[in-house]
Amino acid sequence: MINRLISKIRKTNAPIVVGLDPMMKMVPEYIQKAAFAEYGETLEGAGEAIWQFNKGIVDAIYDLIPAVKPQIAMYEQFGIPGLAAFRKTVDYCHEKGLVVIGDIKRGDIGSTSEAYAVGHLGKVQVGSKSYSAFDEDFATVNPYMGSDNVKPFLKVCQEEKKGIFVLVKTSNPSSGELQDRLIKARDMASGSGERGGADSMDRPLYEIVGEQVAAWGESCMPEEGEYSYVGAVVGATYPEQGKILRRIMPKAFILVPGYGAQGGKGADLIHYFDEDGLGAIVNSSRGIIAAYQQEAYARFGERGYADASRAAVLAMKEDISSALGH
Amino acid sequence: MINRLISKIRKTNAPIVVGLDPMMKMVPEYIQKAAFAEYGETLEGAGEAIWQFNKGIVDAIYDLIPAVKPQIAMYEQFGIPGLAAFRKTVDYCHEKGLVVIGDIKRGDIGSTSEAYAVGHLGKVQVGSKSYSAFDEDFATVNPYMGSDNVKPFLKVCQEEKKGIFVLVKTSNPSSGELQDRLIKARDMASGSGERGGADSMDRPLYEIVGEQVAAWGESCMPEEGEYSYVGAVVGATYPEQGKILRRIMPKAFILVPGYGAQGGKGADLIHYFDEDGLGAIVNSSRGIIAAYQQEAYARFGERGYADASRAAVLAMKEDISSALGH
Repeated sequence: MINRLISKIRKTNAPIVVGLDPMMKMVPEYIQKAAFAEYGETLEGAGEAIWQFNKGIVDAIYDLIPAVKPQIAMYEQFGIPGLAAFRKTVDYCHEKGLVVIGDIKRGDIGSTSEAYAVGHLGKVQVGSKSYSAFDEDFATVNPYMGSDNVKPFLKVCQEEKKGIFVLVKTSNPSSGELQDRLIKARDMASGSGERGGADSMDRPLYEIVGEQVAAWGESCMPEEGEYSYVGAVVGATYPEQGKILRRIMPKAFILVPGYGAQGGKGADLIHYFDEDGLGAIVNSSRGIIAAYQQEAYARFGERGYADASRAAVLAMKEDISSALGH
Repeated sequence: MINRLISKIRKTNAPIVVGLDPMMKMVPEYIQKAAFAEYGETLEGAGEAIWQFNKGIVDAIYDLIPAVKPQIAMYEQFGIPGLAAFRKTVDYCHEKGLVVIGDIKRGDIGSTSEAYAVGHLGKVQVGSKSYSAFDEDFATVNPYMGSDNVKPFLKVCQEEKKGIFVLVKTSNPSSGELQDRLIKARDMASGSGERGGADSMDRPLYEIVGEQVAAWGESCMPEEGEYSYVGAVVGATYPEQGKILRRIMPKAFILVPGYGAQGGKGADLIHYFDEDGLGAIVNSSRGIIAAYQQEAYARFGERGYADASRAAVLAMKEDISSALGH
């Protein structure tokens, strides 16, 4: 799947992923009204509204981009009908040929982590049959509990040729509270003594996680290709850290949130990529799916929300292409 | 809800929570067969099987314990029907008067974190109506992304008088990979310079998170009572760390996983509690719900799986009571 993602990036010439993170306040009123007319002001109605909203956007942009990243929280808040809309969105994006990155940020241990891995990337056994519960191609994963969380995902990734992106340095303002803490050199030396030089320096926690990602990735490579099934999340809002992490994790594809609404710009992103312009994929959510609510795209109006998304994708492609010098 | 949990602990004289983490291999064959006969070997069939399994256990033990902790991953792997079984389990436990701790370990930022908080502990708005999507009383939360994740939960906790347990030191073998890393004193001093003494020493990451939990908890206290809406997860398998963390977070209720199947014993747990025998609640999952599959309870057989759970709860109560000297 990592190779499929790469070939789709090459084909579309767009290292871009669109975050399908619908909030009710983004959904045009005419779509809400139609959904509530059919299902009432219920969770089913909400699920229908976000699904119709998504469908409009996907129809308008699927030919421009390689991948989408639905954020499961935005669906989960509407309970079972919301998650049914999530699954419907995943299936529809697959029909349209898009790679689907499930932004689930799950993290647990042992058999519990296995259940998440199986439920989102693999197949679950029911008697003599097996089923894909959510069927994403990639999932985001939280590293706080250590490799007990990640290893069950690696197993499923290898079996299914799917992938994960491990949170390393996230884009949010408070990401540094833990991720930037300086880890003492002595402690690190005892953990991975053989590496010598680097371990004699104090380094921030995100570098330690970056090294773990690199190690997990080494053990989880596709048969062909330079990039591992194990990628990393590094926010666009921390370009200096991105530069260091690109070096620490040479085989990890980097998923970059924080572009656009969170403040990251194309020019900040050059060091996340390798020389071929590969190695990273930049996410924008609100900036694309709620484009019609921004001044720059207000001319499209509510009824033109999907066309506004298309215009915003084209502008983002242009911004990133020119930053990468394509 | 924290006060309700405490009063239920007092009433049952049992600082115990039972983890409702059903795996198919734990579900007696006669239950699986009945479910598959009705729904086929489908995700619906799996959902029905785990729901019936849970119901039997809850009916057998609800009078002995204050709370249950369903692990959402075990339901999520079966997709929408699995999550419907999760919701049915939450509702049924409420009917039986149990406090429900949703073991969801969610962690995200801003509006996304808010969506998780609203979906699991609060109410989501749909037009002019509002709904509880999953309706747990407490949720577990991952701290890797910092206070951007926790704050939206605090807001909902205050509004709904519900609570969270933040992962601090988890029970699994690899929890130390990040959580035990020594944070350099200099870095800490710059973060919270006013504290002087403690900050001149290098300390492990879990202590830093413990301090954050204490600070978040201070700002999120119920109108009456000693314990905050913000609790912490500290594994039974690390009693020395538990002792330190109890001191760092005097107002945090501690949720203690890792008892039983993972190796923790009652005698290890004494320091997690305060002098009144409060301040902590110990979880057992497999040790209770799959008791009939263990040698000690094999006499109950498959058909007696729920009675075996009851016997295992009574044994656990005894073990913990004698450790606490009650």
